[in-house]
Amino acid sequence: MSRQRIVILGGGFAGVYAAMKLEALSKSRTDLEITLVNHENYFVFQPLLPEIISGDIGLIDAISPLRRLLPRTQLFIRDVDGVDFENNTVRLRPGFWPQLRNVQYDHLIVAMGTVTDFRGFPGLAEHALRFKTLQDAVVLRNHLIQVIQEAGIEDDPARKAALLTFVVAGGGFSGVECCAQINDFVRRLARHEPSIDPAQIQVLLAHSGPRILDKEFPESLSEYSQRVLVKKGIRLLLGKRLKAATPDSAVFADGQRILTKTLVSTVPSSPNPAIEGMGLSEERGRLVVDGTLRVQGKENVWSLGDCALVPLPKGGYAPPTAQHATRQAAHLAKNIVRAIDGKPLATFSFDMLGKMGALGHRYAVAELFGKIRLSGLPAWLMWRTIYWWKLPGIDRKIRLGVSWFLDLLIRPDFVQLRLDAQPGVGQRHYETDEFVFMQGDLGDALYVILKGSVSVIARIDGVEQEIARLQAGECFGELAVMSHEGRTASIRCCEPTDLMVIGRSDFRSLVSHLPSFARGFEEIASNRRVARAESTAPLIDR
Amino acid sequence: MSRQRIVILGGGFAGVYAAMKLEALSKSRTDLEITLVNHENYFVFQPLLPEIISGDIGLIDAISPLRRLLPRTQLFIRDVDGVDFENNTVRLRPGFWPQLRNVQYDHLIVAMGTVTDFRGFPGLAEHALRFKTLQDAVVLRNHLIQVIQEAGIEDDPARKAALLTFVVAGGGFSGVECCAQINDFVRRLARHEPSIDPAQIQVLLAHSGPRILDKEFPESLSEYSQRVLVKKGIRLLLGKRLKAATPDSAVFADGQRILTKTLVSTVPSSPNPAIEGMGLSEERGRLVVDGTLRVQGKENVWSLGDCALVPLPKGGYAPPTAQHATRQAAHLAKNIVRAIDGKPLATFSFDMLGKMGALGHRYAVAELFGKIRLSGLPAWLMWRTIYWWKLPGIDRKIRLGVSWFLDLLIRPDFVQLRLDAQPGVGQRHYETDEFVFMQGDLGDALYVILKGSVSVIARIDGVEQEIARLQAGECFGELAVMSHEGRTASIRCCEPTDLMVIGRSDFRSLVSHLPSFARGFEEIASNRRVARAESTAPLIDR
Repeated sequence: MSRQRIVILGGGFAGVYAAMKLEALSKSRTDLEITLVNHENYFVFQPLLPEIISGDIGLIDAISPLRRLLPRTQLFIRDVDGVDFENNTVRLRPGFWPQLRNVQYDHLIVAMGTVTDFRGFPGLAEHALRFKTLQDAVVLRNHLIQVIQEAGIEDDPARKAALLTFVVAGGGFSGVECCAQINDFVRRLARHEPSIDPAQIQVLLAHSGPRILDKEFPESLSEYSQRVLVKKGIRLLLGKRLKAATPDSAVFADGQRILTKTLVSTVPSSPNPAIEGMGLSEERGRLVVDGTLRVQGKENVWSLGDCALVPLPKGGYAPPTAQHATRQAAHLAKNIVRAIDGKPLATFSFDMLGKMGALGHRYAVAELFGKIRLSGLPAWLMWRTIYWWKLPGIDRKIRLGVSWFLDLLIRPDFVQLRLDAQPGVGQRHYETDEFVFMQGDLGDALYVILKGSVSVIARIDGVEQEIARLQAGECFGELAVMSHEGRTASIRCCEPTDLMVIGRSDFRSLVSHLPSFARGFEEIASNRRVARAESTAPLIDR
Repeated sequence: MSRQRIVILGGGFAGVYAAMKLEALSKSRTDLEITLVNHENYFVFQPLLPEIISGDIGLIDAISPLRRLLPRTQLFIRDVDGVDFENNTVRLRPGFWPQLRNVQYDHLIVAMGTVTDFRGFPGLAEHALRFKTLQDAVVLRNHLIQVIQEAGIEDDPARKAALLTFVVAGGGFSGVECCAQINDFVRRLARHEPSIDPAQIQVLLAHSGPRILDKEFPESLSEYSQRVLVKKGIRLLLGKRLKAATPDSAVFADGQRILTKTLVSTVPSSPNPAIEGMGLSEERGRLVVDGTLRVQGKENVWSLGDCALVPLPKGGYAPPTAQHATRQAAHLAKNIVRAIDGKPLATFSFDMLGKMGALGHRYAVAELFGKIRLSGLPAWLMWRTIYWWKLPGIDRKIRLGVSWFLDLLIRPDFVQLRLDAQPGVGQRHYETDEFVFMQGDLGDALYVILKGSVSVIARIDGVEQEIARLQAGECFGELAVMSHEGRTASIRCCEPTDLMVIGRSDFRSLVSHLPSFARGFEEIASNRRVARAESTAPLIDR
């Protein structure tokens, strides 16, 4: 009997539950070999992710190591580079050594879900926080802690207000739950800072629709949700669409700019770019599969979950929820075994049981079987009970139970798990009239204009005046980066502007070790000096 | 009554316990204002740090938020830029906006401890893991998980052996405890990987002295410790001094090179560089204070803990331990209040109670009052009891107790908390004959030679031959970085060589947006082409 190798790409609900079912089905036979490829070595129980923000549960209570869930599956903790369908091979990105790795398959399951995609929204990739993965939740939590700490020692009222303004864009489940948790958390944190008046804290939820959760719930439940959020101190911005972001503000389609240091965007996710490159048939960015979950035109490639467009017998397509993904996973596992055994395949069918959303501590909303509606504490208790029950693995159930119990007993945590990263070369987006830096600021980075233009403004003899205008391709800020003095001028953007940023230490390394790089900057600088007839001191001292 | 502002720099045992004592002393009076400056918003209970590696305790069980320990202290979670002793002002590094912040003091307490310092050891800064801070522990733990996962899917025997070799340098408390935990953890992790034979795992502890813990304990206890470690499967390399590190090996003073992907160095710490710049009187890198803990030559500057050279009445100086730091803290707090009240100061004196060291699960060694010696399970139970008792804050005591209890009940975790960082511009060190990359490898970075020289080797018509030699100032690797093909040649170092590394995405940003940068690379490349009479295709395609 020849062994059949089933390779699963993706470790979300779809991929992990398919692997679990396949492990169960392979207990009675020895010809199945299961392999799973994922970027992380753990499975995230998404519904609990918002609770990580506020520390209601510990950092790792909502996640299970894949190895525990899948003891008999071979794991590759790697990124997918591509698939060679001719040769039934998946290419994986390198581990410690710079070589691709090939993995053969007899059957391939594509379960790569969706990713956050900020293309088409200037500045969001650089300045908005995401909320989809565990890493996003940890980064957001650390950011909130830092913002409150800084607000506690900030003397400038405008800056303090910006620090204490929190904007969440997107009024679906993810945006609402995230906003409710942010609101709970920052208000609790601020109590420890005597210099912060709770009335100064603004938590805003922006949604392009007429009501929050308008796509998920009937009017009554979505209006109830709104009342709960407003009672908790959240301000709703309805009919409001996020357009762009800058280091200091959220910019909306109607032109309004809100000054903030915290913008979270939960705008619709996009298909995983790894899928786009595979050349499989797609529709609306999702892979086209038939009712048996087989990808159109392929004998041994299957797909499910958020990345697949799964047709339902009653018409329409399965929504991208965990409920559907787990049912599809079980169905798909059985169909693959049927295909291997030469038996006829079955068609997927499932009716949604209900929908639930948490609204922060002690509040939730739910709709069951399209009829029963629940809200408030009963819905919240049901929410916790169902998800505790659904959480895979007894270890996690114990941990989560203990966390929820300790949550009653001891005050939650606000340790900032700061993992300092090297900055590298980045980008920034600014809107018209925003300042990149002010005269006298520390020189922390050098900037190259990619798009747009800026005005160089200096205070000379007490009068502010524009001394130059710089266009795309030009750079500024090298003077203060190379010296230990402050910025010699302010920079204001004349239009929406994109900048490339090279951090101080990177810039210094490049200048001192790459003569051509240094020479290029000397040229730029000396041209500018001549044009402005300014000081002739050497710009770059080596 | 004028308010007295006491500013504390540093949030370790010394700084935090001084602040706690000052808070206690200020309960009965209103003229004391306490401020603490620290890089992180938490206090790390150092003795428990090794347990984080193996997950015996949770990530945040060993740390307490400063705000909880110090409810009435003003906190600045910032780095110290410098001190202006003339104007009694501390300068802090920027927060969200690029400006320094000044903080006035009436009394200044310098409690900045020591930092890991790899100067003088080529390659250690780039390739060795540290073990001093919480961040170090998290990074080390994540690295161990990744190494075992990669070993589980590695087919090449030499690479697999390197992945399964773990080297810890330093046989003091920190190195021994860290090594014991690494050993426990990787052996437990490897049990889940069917392709790893436990006999392949090598955990090595290198120490320059004749016995481990030879400075800390008498011969009997240090020999007992050695027997425990050897029984656990650790190999001791005694009389062995680490000299350098490369991406693939640990290099020792006697010339031996051990191939490994995990080198942890706990070599002696150095004074905090922030202190070096202050211009206070130093000896052996520590601040000179008198018996009252006042810094020599200053009226209102005090120091304690690991960064201070505290004289003891019996002669000699206080060792850099938590036991001494906490006693000094209480003493210093009282002396400052005495100084404010115009009362005479008291002289610090304290006899060490004992020393303890953990040796992984269920084993420890201890010496009490210089007489009583304990080892094995009794010492381990005493170790846990004492540290549980010493852990500040009832919240933490509960959490730690629960963690230790869960540790008996459920299997420990191995979730890899991967926070992907942007790479930026870095450095690498290689020794003679090591390869930087091989022909055919993926082009993930460009290299500039800072020191040393390399040989460019290509396989032409099946024969390997040296086609060029590159010296300091030259660069290589740009071809594969700009294309999607593999490396066209291998690079071998002719001598110990330092390289600057620019990652693929950074290099591409710089080339496409900075014409001068691109031009520089075109020049270098075309020179090299002429010299080698190679292909004339444009090297950099824009």
